[in-house]
Amino acid sequence: MEFDLQAVTEPGKKMVLMAEEHSADFATRADEHDSQGTFAFENVEAMKKSGFAAAAVPQEFGGMGVTSIHDCVVAMNRLGRGDASTPLAFTMHLFRVLSTARGLNNARKTGNQARQTRLEDMLRKIGAGDFIISVANSERGADIRTSRTTATKTKGGWLFNGTKTFATGSPAANVLAVRARYQNSAGEERLGATMAPVDRPGVEIMNDWQGMGMRASASHDVVFTDYFVPDEEFDDIGEFGKYNAAFLSVASGASMGLSSIFLGIAEAAQKIAVDATKERGRADYPMNQVTVAENEIELAACRGILGRAAQSFDDFYQTGAGAGGVVPEVTEMEAFEIIKNAATAKKYVMDKAGEIVNRAITVYGGGGFVTGSTLARLYRDVRAGPLMQPWATNQAVEFIGKVSLGINPND
Amino acid sequence: MEFDLQAVTEPGKKMVLMAEEHSADFATRADEHDSQGTFAFENVEAMKKSGFAAAAVPQEFGGMGVTSIHDCVVAMNRLGRGDASTPLAFTMHLFRVLSTARGLNNARKTGNQARQTRLEDMLRKIGAGDFIISVANSERGADIRTSRTTATKTKGGWLFNGTKTFATGSPAANVLAVRARYQNSAGEERLGATMAPVDRPGVEIMNDWQGMGMRASASHDVVFTDYFVPDEEFDDIGEFGKYNAAFLSVASGASMGLSSIFLGIAEAAQKIAVDATKERGRADYPMNQVTVAENEIELAACRGILGRAAQSFDDFYQTGAGAGGVVPEVTEMEAFEIIKNAATAKKYVMDKAGEIVNRAITVYGGGGFVTGSTLARLYRDVRAGPLMQPWATNQAVEFIGKVSLGINPND
Amino acid sequence: MEFDLQAVTEPGKKMVLMAEEHSADFATRADEHDSQGTFAFENVEAMKKSGFAAAAVPQEFGGMGVTSIHDCVVAMNRLGRGDASTPLAFTMHLFRVLSTARGLNNARKTGNQARQTRLEDMLRKIGAGDFIISVANSERGADIRTSRTTATKTKGGWLFNGTKTFATGSPAANVLAVRARYQNSAGEERLGATMAPVDRPGVEIMNDWQGMGMRASASHDVVFTDYFVPDEEFDDIGEFGKYNAAFLSVASGASMGLSSIFLGIAEAAQKIAVDATKERGRADYPMNQVTVAENEIELAACRGILGRAAQSFDDFYQTGAGAGGVVPEVTEMEAFEIIKNAATAKKYVMDKAGEIVNRAITVYGGGGFVTGSTLARLYRDVRAGPLMQPWATNQAVEFIGKVSLGINPND
Amino acid sequence: MEFDLQAVTEPGKKMVLMAEEHSADFATRADEHDSQGTFAFENVEAMKKSGFAAAAVPQEFGGMGVTSIHDCVVAMNRLGRGDASTPLAFTMHLFRVLSTARGLNNARKTGNQARQTRLEDMLRKIGAGDFIISVANSERGADIRTSRTTATKTKGGWLFNGTKTFATGSPAANVLAVRARYQNSAGEERLGATMAPVDRPGVEIMNDWQGMGMRASASHDVVFTDYFVPDEEFDDIGEFGKYNAAFLSVASGASMGLSSIFLGIAEAAQKIAVDATKERGRADYPMNQVTVAENEIELAACRGILGRAAQSFDDFYQTGAGAGGVVPEVTEMEAFEIIKNAATAKKYVMDKAGEIVNRAITVYGGGGFVTGSTLARLYRDVRAGPLMQPWATNQAVEFIGKVSLGINPND
Repeated sequence: MEFDLQAVTEPGKKMVLMAEEHSADFATRADEHDSQGTFAFENVEAMKKSGFAAAAVPQEFGGMGVTSIHDCVVAMNRLGRGDASTPLAFTMHLFRVLSTARGLNNARKTGNQARQTRLEDMLRKIGAGDFIISVANSERGADIRTSRTTATKTKGGWLFNGTKTFATGSPAANVLAVRARYQNSAGEERLGATMAPVDRPGVEIMNDWQGMGMRASASHDVVFTDYFVPDEEFDDIGEFGKYNAAFLSVASGASMGLSSIFLGIAEAAQKIAVDATKERGRADYPMNQVTVAENEIELAACRGILGRAAQSFDDFYQTGAGAGGVVPEVTEMEAFEIIKNAATAKKYVMDKAGEIVNRAITVYGGGGFVTGSTLARLYRDVRAGPLMQPWATNQAVEFIGKVSLGINPND
Repeated sequence: MEFDLQAVTEPGKKMVLMAEEHSADFATRADEHDSQGTFAFENVEAMKKSGFAAAAVPQEFGGMGVTSIHDCVVAMNRLGRGDASTPLAFTMHLFRVLSTARGLNNARKTGNQARQTRLEDMLRKIGAGDFIISVANSERGADIRTSRTTATKTKGGWLFNGTKTFATGSPAANVLAVRARYQNSAGEERLGATMAPVDRPGVEIMNDWQGMGMRASASHDVVFTDYFVPDEEFDDIGEFGKYNAAFLSVASGASMGLSSIFLGIAEAAQKIAVDATKERGRADYPMNQVTVAENEIELAACRGILGRAAQSFDDFYQTGAGAGGVVPEVTEMEAFEIIKNAATAKKYVMDKAGEIVNRAITVYGGGGFVTGSTLARLYRDVRAGPLMQPWATNQAVEFIGKVSLGINPND
Repeated sequence: MEFDLQAVTEPGKKMVLMAEEHSADFATRADEHDSQGTFAFENVEAMKKSGFAAAAVPQEFGGMGVTSIHDCVVAMNRLGRGDASTPLAFTMHLFRVLSTARGLNNARKTGNQARQTRLEDMLRKIGAGDFIISVANSERGADIRTSRTTATKTKGGWLFNGTKTFATGSPAANVLAVRARYQNSAGEERLGATMAPVDRPGVEIMNDWQGMGMRASASHDVVFTDYFVPDEEFDDIGEFGKYNAAFLSVASGASMGLSSIFLGIAEAAQKIAVDATKERGRADYPMNQVTVAENEIELAACRGILGRAAQSFDDFYQTGAGAGGVVPEVTEMEAFEIIKNAATAKKYVMDKAGEIVNRAITVYGGGGFVTGSTLARLYRDVRAGPLMQPWATNQAVEFIGKVSLGINPND
Repeated sequence: MEFDLQAVTEPGKKMVLMAEEHSADFATRADEHDSQGTFAFENVEAMKKSGFAAAAVPQEFGGMGVTSIHDCVVAMNRLGRGDASTPLAFTMHLFRVLSTARGLNNARKTGNQARQTRLEDMLRKIGAGDFIISVANSERGADIRTSRTTATKTKGGWLFNGTKTFATGSPAANVLAVRARYQNSAGEERLGATMAPVDRPGVEIMNDWQGMGMRASASHDVVFTDYFVPDEEFDDIGEFGKYNAAFLSVASGASMGLSSIFLGIAEAAQKIAVDATKERGRADYPMNQVTVAENEIELAACRGILGRAAQSFDDFYQTGAGAGGVVPEVTEMEAFEIIKNAATAKKYVMDKAGEIVNRAITVYGGGGFVTGSTLARLYRDVRAGPLMQPWATNQAVEFIGKVSLGINPND
């Protein structure tokens, strides 16, 4: 796999090396955690201990100073090869840290002292190696534009009520990123967000995850009951029912990180199929060559589309219009054009990863169908990809089509 | 589903109605058996009791007299909609009965009295409703042309030794169809076959099936240790390492029956997706319409290719060159041309069934990914199809390609 | 091609044999007409002379009495193998004759004497072998639900004004089936239709067809300028802007006939590729086997989906709810369900025919790219299929998706 | 098209800008040359005059000093958007110049004075702006490993005899790169090569190109009759019938350049479809959005796979094992691993470009089918891609499959 995705920055290269070491370690326990449906707390501990969990924390706060979205995507790819459940949770943390560091830059530039202090505080905690962010945003019957969880004004803050689903990695999290619907003083329906510490009253992680795949991801429901969020920890993130460009731009990083994990799944499956074919002396069977070639071609395309999409975000944030850390200088449609890159990569990689695993089983044969086979785990895990938001498959198609035709998807 | 596959003969129509009733019943227990990995003995009992298990037994022996391969394929489709594991086992029984009945016709025509008596005896037992045939032919490292199980000559018969895999439904079987490699008196490597009663010494069903899907199919290993087969129960079925046209022709019926079960899986998945979309009021979402339409188109193609392939076998056996019950009047290549129809249908339907289930989950959303969801079961079950022999995916491609280009696949 | 589509009725079998003879003859001139862009008048003459042009005329009027849509579809398949341009024009004639014969049955049943006389007159002319119907319905910026051509009330009739496109085969036609938008006395926008004799004033065939493919199809523009249609020749065919079930049902027959021509194109391409591969001694190249197999599988699926769709229309018209010749006893949605079958087959076959020709060139090599190569003609011709109405590709997807989800596409 | 392929070196960026200007100019004449089947001599003259034809000539010889294969690939992409026939010819020239410049570096390093002088001479001529290289290597019944043209030893040189096909751009060439089969003194079958000036006796350009597409590419036959090549202009390029890694590595650059032209075709088609959809006010039709989105996703994947493959060659030649200008330090299999990248990109882009043009016509409608429509030209042109060597489609699959499974494709 000499031509796989490669980090381009120096801190990124160190991060990827570290990811490869963690990946090899996680792989040894992946089938067992899958079989038992247990969350690999020890993997999270290992990433905290090695400093990997602080990779995107600036060096001034004790981190490795990785700022490249591209390189974080590459690191997630390496983790995904060994075990997909752990990085699924970790991606949320990683891309939140990245955007927090960008947010800090922005707060410093704009002189927003309160925000600066809050973000520095968080980065310092993460840099100290004992703080994990997770996300509890999915809900039944809602998508990235909406929420059924409500935030109701109360004295000094807001009360959150609602049930979140697919809160991957929540048992290891110190805080959960949460969205809720609220009414502002003008009576408009808006979306608000907070980082909710899990050690306050009113939040319960249900420990109820029972997935067909990603069984070790602890993607539990989380129930908020009159959970209090102080005013200073509550952020407005835009109009209810609309795509918010700034928010979506941040989510796009995570979306590419997730896609990269699934590329890792596909690479792992192909490696199992190729190795087995060689070992069995079946490499000279032309039909095996065809199927292996089809996978190689699609793997190359997945790497290409994902690498370029991630690079386009780095260009945007580091040298382009988004260099301020948010997206102030671009129009909404210009922002959607960039976000389209992430949606495109997500749609492509998630679909193709499934097809690649499928073909790997074709080459490997019936042994890939039995319980305990790693290929069988990958087949179950890989189906999660197209369902993830943003972008569930058909929502991605709609968004890409509209933006390509010059239609604002919020219209 | 008004334009789904329909039986064309009168006995076939009755059989299909019965299949629909059994299917509705089996469906109520399918998720539970999948969850527990238990074999649905009660389903087999129900099929014995209703007479369905004797559908292909001539009326003179107490059966329903179904002779149409096409109609048996349709019946399997209906069963597959409710529960795939049970018909997976039953297909082997059904198509063995069909070929036994054809074999009896042939024996009567050719005046082979010994064979006639043996086959009448078997049909009578099955017609009496308490006799099930299963197949134990798959082996690790072997395909339809080979076997690692050996038959060694001994006094008055043969001793079978070897381990069979994927012996679907074996716990409910009275006899197992088994192949073995042997040397004839001229020292040539040949394949032999027998119907091995499971109540004789030397055969052990290992109860070890642990599939990712088809978990209720009891596809256990079966070990034969010096299992004695009397000379009169031992049949030569052709050269070792070669496709045997007559044998393959019989196997093609079962192969289409299996494919039809997977069409049933795909139809069930599409129904779940369509029903849910309607219930949720999401039928007007254009992207859902596209995905649903793609599935409808492929379902129509699956029905078309499968229905025509099955009909071509009926034409062959009932009015064509194979009307004698075996394939004596055609050349090997002519037989392969017909067999190609089954391989074509098998390859197509098995691939597309997987794609259809996949799209159904796309439409249905994340709820299709959790344990206990029927769609999640169908996703796991459907992957078995392309692996089944005959024809594993790539072997089908090779066979179809060669025959289409006028190359004998045995050369 | 032993398992290709086969006629099921006796008159149909004769028709198909005749089609095979015409096809072999037309094939000898196809490349030349393509090169010159000339219409094969001699082919139309040959079909008149042989009686083929009167195949669907009842025997009482001198025809062959073919009533099966399925068998007409099979006949078009055979023509398509030899030359696609001629049957493209002829399909319109054939399916108009079929529906005229059904219309006559209906008129007799309902005692509509005027209509009976008009239809008998037309069938008698066609049966006499010197009368061809063509269709001039396509227009820029309109689809099957609309028309920019207008019919304006005048004394004793209507004046038609507008420009039709893709009036395939128009130079050989005696009458053109034409649609126009009109206002009824209640001021409602409706669609009207007539069979317009080309020898009356006010109609001009522009002889301007310049297609990339189907170059011998004479798919000219036709301009109507104050063309007078007497009241008794003017039929209302439904609400403007809506799918009309009865009209669409008739068009579906033609749509399947067209699809069948393109199946013929695909079969011809595959035959060229297979024959060349054999001749060059390249049949043993595994990659050729794979590509040939992929084509065989898709050809089988095309035949299956098309054969079943056509049969479903025969069932409907001959023994089902539509046996009266029109669709009176079914609801609009029930009619759409049946029409969906034709849309499904059309979408599938037209797409796959293109892919099959494409793969045939892959197998054949660079010689298939040069001017004068039959494969190059087929590559150009085959692209017309998905554009034809009903159903252009995306309109088919929309219709199928909506009907499958229980949505009336007219809502 | 903000996220299209971008040059990464400074000279490359200038070259791409120049390509965009030429492209806009060429586009104005493309349909006319296609219609007439004429070669655009004026386009070649323009590229000579602007200095574009000398882009890859080192600055010391009057060129622009572009050394990046990646950037040349990007430049070809831009040309391809305006007119595919001209760059098809020019790619051969461009990548020969690139490899000549690398060869010169190598000759200087190794002190091969004769070779140094010869290559300097050629680069000086090209730098002076009046010297074009073309390639005449294709032959009926031969592939990249073989040749039917023979080189027979004669006094002081070799006599070439044979017929080359698809000698794109030959009428504008000063020299033709030609391969021939010969026997060395040990009696071994080898492949030899030369750069054959067209102004010597014994070479005839037949002016006989009649393509379905790429009609303005002048891809004529070229006949060599006792054409004399002096010993000092004759190079051995390896064993007859085998892939030669060094030669194939050079050809891979051209192969990616060609692929990039076809990406340009696809981008042009998508632009036509998108622009028309907007102009007609049909951007809000969901089915159009789906088809446009599918194209955007595949365009993104094409750019990704092609950009990365080209970059991998730059890495290899500029900083990697091939930095000497040839491939001496790597094993044959290591070289094949790199070449696999080009084969992968070629296979993917050529296939997908065809699909993208096809979908663009679906969105555009019937107007894309008529003669004179640019889309119709693109549909005909784009089919050439998968046929080009290296790598014709199936040969690419075989090569990729074997190398991926660790099999030397020469075994």
